[in-house]
Amino acid sequence: MKKIKIGVIGAGRIGKIHVDNLRRIPEAEIVAVSDLFAGEELQEWAGSRGIGIVTKDSEEILSNPDIDAVFICSSTDTHVELIKRAAQEGKHIFCEKPVSMDISLTEEALEEVRKAGVQLQVGFNRRFDHNFKRVREHVQAGEIGSPHLIKITSRDPEPPPEAYIKVSGGIFMDMMIHDFDMARFLSGSEVEEVFAQGSVLIDPVFSKYGDVDTAIVTLRFENGALGLIDSSRRAVYGYDQRAEVFGSKGAVSVTNDHPNTAVLTTENGLRSDKPLHFFLERYQGAYMDETEQFIDCLLNGKPVPVNGNDGRQAERIALAAKLSHQQQRVVKLSEIEDLK
Amino acid sequence: MKKIKIGVIGAGRIGKIHVDNLRRIPEAEIVAVSDLFAGEELQEWAGSRGIGIVTKDSEEILSNPDIDAVFICSSTDTHVELIKRAAQEGKHIFCEKPVSMDISLTEEALEEVRKAGVQLQVGFNRRFDHNFKRVREHVQAGEIGSPHLIKITSRDPEPPPEAYIKVSGGIFMDMMIHDFDMARFLSGSEVEEVFAQGSVLIDPVFSKYGDVDTAIVTLRFENGALGLIDSSRRAVYGYDQRAEVFGSKGAVSVTNDHPNTAVLTTENGLRSDKPLHFFLERYQGAYMDETEQFIDCLLNGKPVPVNGNDGRQAERIALAAKLSHQQQRVVKLSEIEDLK
Amino acid sequence: MKKIKIGVIGAGRIGKIHVDNLRRIPEAEIVAVSDLFAGEELQEWAGSRGIGIVTKDSEEILSNPDIDAVFICSSTDTHVELIKRAAQEGKHIFCEKPVSMDISLTEEALEEVRKAGVQLQVGFNRRFDHNFKRVREHVQAGEIGSPHLIKITSRDPEPPPEAYIKVSGGIFMDMMIHDFDMARFLSGSEVEEVFAQGSVLIDPVFSKYGDVDTAIVTLRFENGALGLIDSSRRAVYGYDQRAEVFGSKGAVSVTNDHPNTAVLTTENGLRSDKPLHFFLERYQGAYMDETEQFIDCLLNGKPVPVNGNDGRQAERIALAAKLSHQQQRVVKLSEIEDLK
Amino acid sequence: MKKIKIGVIGAGRIGKIHVDNLRRIPEAEIVAVSDLFAGEELQEWAGSRGIGIVTKDSEEILSNPDIDAVFICSSTDTHVELIKRAAQEGKHIFCEKPVSMDISLTEEALEEVRKAGVQLQVGFNRRFDHNFKRVREHVQAGEIGSPHLIKITSRDPEPPPEAYIKVSGGIFMDMMIHDFDMARFLSGSEVEEVFAQGSVLIDPVFSKYGDVDTAIVTLRFENGALGLIDSSRRAVYGYDQRAEVFGSKGAVSVTNDHPNTAVLTTENGLRSDKPLHFFLERYQGAYMDETEQFIDCLLNGKPVPVNGNDGRQAERIALAAKLSHQQQRVVKLSEIEDLK
Repeated sequence: MKKIKIGVIGAGRIGKIHVDNLRRIPEAEIVAVSDLFAGEELQEWAGSRGIGIVTKDSEEILSNPDIDAVFICSSTDTHVELIKRAAQEGKHIFCEKPVSMDISLTEEALEEVRKAGVQLQVGFNRRFDHNFKRVREHVQAGEIGSPHLIKITSRDPEPPPEAYIKVSGGIFMDMMIHDFDMARFLSGSEVEEVFAQGSVLIDPVFSKYGDVDTAIVTLRFENGALGLIDSSRRAVYGYDQRAEVFGSKGAVSVTNDHPNTAVLTTENGLRSDKPLHFFLERYQGAYMDETEQFIDCLLNGKPVPVNGNDGRQAERIALAAKLSHQQQRVVKLSEIEDLK
Repeated sequence: MKKIKIGVIGAGRIGKIHVDNLRRIPEAEIVAVSDLFAGEELQEWAGSRGIGIVTKDSEEILSNPDIDAVFICSSTDTHVELIKRAAQEGKHIFCEKPVSMDISLTEEALEEVRKAGVQLQVGFNRRFDHNFKRVREHVQAGEIGSPHLIKITSRDPEPPPEAYIKVSGGIFMDMMIHDFDMARFLSGSEVEEVFAQGSVLIDPVFSKYGDVDTAIVTLRFENGALGLIDSSRRAVYGYDQRAEVFGSKGAVSVTNDHPNTAVLTTENGLRSDKPLHFFLERYQGAYMDETEQFIDCLLNGKPVPVNGNDGRQAERIALAAKLSHQQQRVVKLSEIEDLK
Repeated sequence: MKKIKIGVIGAGRIGKIHVDNLRRIPEAEIVAVSDLFAGEELQEWAGSRGIGIVTKDSEEILSNPDIDAVFICSSTDTHVELIKRAAQEGKHIFCEKPVSMDISLTEEALEEVRKAGVQLQVGFNRRFDHNFKRVREHVQAGEIGSPHLIKITSRDPEPPPEAYIKVSGGIFMDMMIHDFDMARFLSGSEVEEVFAQGSVLIDPVFSKYGDVDTAIVTLRFENGALGLIDSSRRAVYGYDQRAEVFGSKGAVSVTNDHPNTAVLTTENGLRSDKPLHFFLERYQGAYMDETEQFIDCLLNGKPVPVNGNDGRQAERIALAAKLSHQQQRVVKLSEIEDLK
Repeated sequence: MKKIKIGVIGAGRIGKIHVDNLRRIPEAEIVAVSDLFAGEELQEWAGSRGIGIVTKDSEEILSNPDIDAVFICSSTDTHVELIKRAAQEGKHIFCEKPVSMDISLTEEALEEVRKAGVQLQVGFNRRFDHNFKRVREHVQAGEIGSPHLIKITSRDPEPPPEAYIKVSGGIFMDMMIHDFDMARFLSGSEVEEVFAQGSVLIDPVFSKYGDVDTAIVTLRFENGALGLIDSSRRAVYGYDQRAEVFGSKGAVSVTNDHPNTAVLTTENGLRSDKPLHFFLERYQGAYMDETEQFIDCLLNGKPVPVNGNDGRQAERIALAAKLSHQQQRVVKLSEIEDLK
């Protein structure tokens, strides 16, 4: 059996998720893992998973001729350089979102990928979620006719720590980039105009970094359809991830996943448990699926399901939203640099 | 416009509901109302509704040649005599359930109705409920194939007062007779065997009268399908009225009606308001519809939607359930006297 | 018993609804009805309801000293004059929405109402809907903390005829004015900024009149909360009226009403009936309640639940939305003339 | 790290599920697997999972001193002998349900387990299901007060093949034994009386073996509560596993799991996907959890969560149900032999 040999760069929370998912895929073998802060703990963690090489230096992975593909799970500011190096070494790439916060740097990375002829998959895991996938299927099957309105709700259970807020790139790039990708995914159409509004309603710390914690973005798509996204850094009841596509023949909507279906009915009314609390629980299956499909595409020479252009377009919408919010006006996506 | 002239016998809670519903039907005119306890209060109540005759003596209604039809809403022990008298006077009859607690007396009443050629509708209001009607429609349209299992849940928000328990005829005759009719209505089939179990779990007062407050009844239908009914005298969260029919091609189920669709989601989970509290709210529309259809059938010479035989069959099942509970055995419906 | 004597001006669809609801209120008596097109048919219709005066001339109602209050249900362009005349005659006023499409004319009417010291209730019936009322109650009880996001979905089952589109005032004034009022009602806060986007996706006829058939409006409230409204002239599955308020302690949402709770489960999945088809069914109870409360307020000298200022503020938001859509920019509500 | 060394006896569908779950538990090591039909295919399957010993002879596992615990996944008629042998060898035991179809044989096996002082867990996986567990939690927390009614629905997506029906022990022992255990689990009470009714409505092949394909069982519990279970060998829409406990303070109910939350709304109504189709999908997490808890109990010397007595009591109820069905009468559980 042919196996894809993999190096994982960055062993934080998301890197570890990918490692554990990759271990469940018989056709994948994790050869090495690197992390700037690699120490005894990581050594032990990797050892218990049968990973031979643990290093602080990602270059050990990039230059290792045994390795077919890399998972880039390090901080966003390292993505572009790592993609370029991996491409130069002829390695296929799975890169966490966003590729970068600067569209021309993203373009540099994509250009290197194209030149090298390697595959690049961007980590828009939500496309693989059982709920959102089903919406897309209904839309693509024509069951709602042509889309008129695309609605996305995206709320986190709690804000990140200040240290993260500082370097996050802001709510539009850090958090809503998932929603911008989702808007393209669900509608099957490209965005033409963006309008964004934001408020600081949860924690004044966001103001300190020119960021907001509550935001809405409206979109106009090429086909005239309109989009609405609402986002919050804190839904006290847990992760809130819903969507609806409304069209000429009907609508399809998805709501949250819950830990069980129990309903308690008493004198005080009906009560049930709140939604799954965070992305690790809600998107567990989605993370597994995106990884399986990536490996499958490499093995069978098929194009990856979320490519560099998907990464770039979501970034462009995020940049447009940021600009719209700053300037309090509608921003046309054409104002944001695209592929040369 | 031809109007049906009506006398209402018995002006308790249910009699008053019928009066107020009849007033909303342009083709109906309430000429008289009688009640054993008719006094100043009833006089005033009737006056404000434009009802000319208020009397203690039902005979004033029965012998009034202006009256086309009577609504019998008095206590169960008076039904048989009133039906017989009304039939002799050539009046059409709407009678609250049950016709009686003695199947041979019921048969006497029905015999008189047949002889007189008048119409008799029995007050199984739940057949007109938007939910149960829809179940029946799906079953009759063949959408679930042939029925295999019929399940009915029927729970009251609180037990009646002791004075009522004493004369109620017991849970099987008083409360579950509605469910026995519903079982026939939903399945479109007749019952062959009955098994009943009961417990006193809510209030020991039920034991005093040989009654129970919690009961389950299982049924075997002519076509081999099986039925399950569960019943309680007290669901603290309100009126609980649900049903399911499962068959060879699928299942159809209905749940309770709620006062609104609001869902509150907080750290403590999801919460919504409990079901409509009592039969007056839940079956408001059903009471209206059964009355409208009765009037329509009289006006247009159509057979009424719930006839004397429906009344009798539900009574037979109730009697079989009572016997089964007493003797702790399966009772065949053929053991219970039917139409001579 | 004191009765409020009423004249109804305009006997189209909505006027007739009010007549039928008023008839069910013992403390209200409909003395007269006027309609520009009053003829034999209306005469008969009114006669069967015991309404003595039927006229083409609203002045017959306005100058009738027996009449305590008028219901203005005629076309929008007649509202201002009728309100002014009714106020001058010392009559209380129930007026359908919008008061007018010109905020200074609306102000003239309100000024006359203030001078006369009569009551004016504007027909924002949705405030009385069991679902939206429950949302408001939860918000006011503090159960979701302070509001951060207010979301409203408002879709009609089908577009009006071209003749109506022509004079409707456009989607923002004609249809979404209800939603603008709802946004104020649910949030308990005033709007500061408005942004609107629209498309013609259903029927090109809307373009002919500078109108759109699909629109989204975002709002910024005084307290920093953000609002999102989406609207369509045609949801093929029926009337779609939902809302959600999300805040610091949770969220409350309401969905549509359905004709029954039946769920059919087969090899093809779960299926249930679509929502109630139109506003007459969905808001039947709401229309009744607004009328009962109006009468109750007149009888007991209480302020009406939806007053002239509510009418004006919703109109200002509608005008701001229209301007925003025309100029493709954020419009501050302060740009729209308010009370002098 | 201490590891529990395991031998798996029987490598059919359920044995393989246990193997794959055990592999995900770091504290468990599968040393050997036996199967009567072990051949090249099983050798390869086991090899790819790093299992060293593959044999046709379960005795190789039972007498292997390296093995701490066995999973008995072979056919029911082998359970008693294997349990006795494993106990004699001092091995802990996980045994699939039922222990046997003969209560005195079951008792022999349990006696041997007691003498040897080993642990025995019976494979009532549904106790570990997220939904049923939540019902039990609510009941045990007193949130519904004292239970009055326990309702269980248990329907398979399709009947087993005739070869299996022949040796299955019948619907009460093979399929409903899970529900009998669930009734004890949810109510926290023992059963005193059993009544069973059955029909052949799906496939006449069941009659051939004195079996039925559609059955209802009612239970009376020690505390007076009543139980209702309905069961079918074929729900065309998939696995149907629901429960409800109703009590003095309210009710708690659970419904099925679905593959996604998508709802499609069109002119034809609302539509969503049918429930998860079979037990492998629905109870995937439950199988994992029962195995983790078994290993945890062995490692930490805690009593297993489902013991031999749980196995025996469910068997007694199944035997009572069978007898009740044959003799068409209520069977007291005391008629069925219990622990000597």
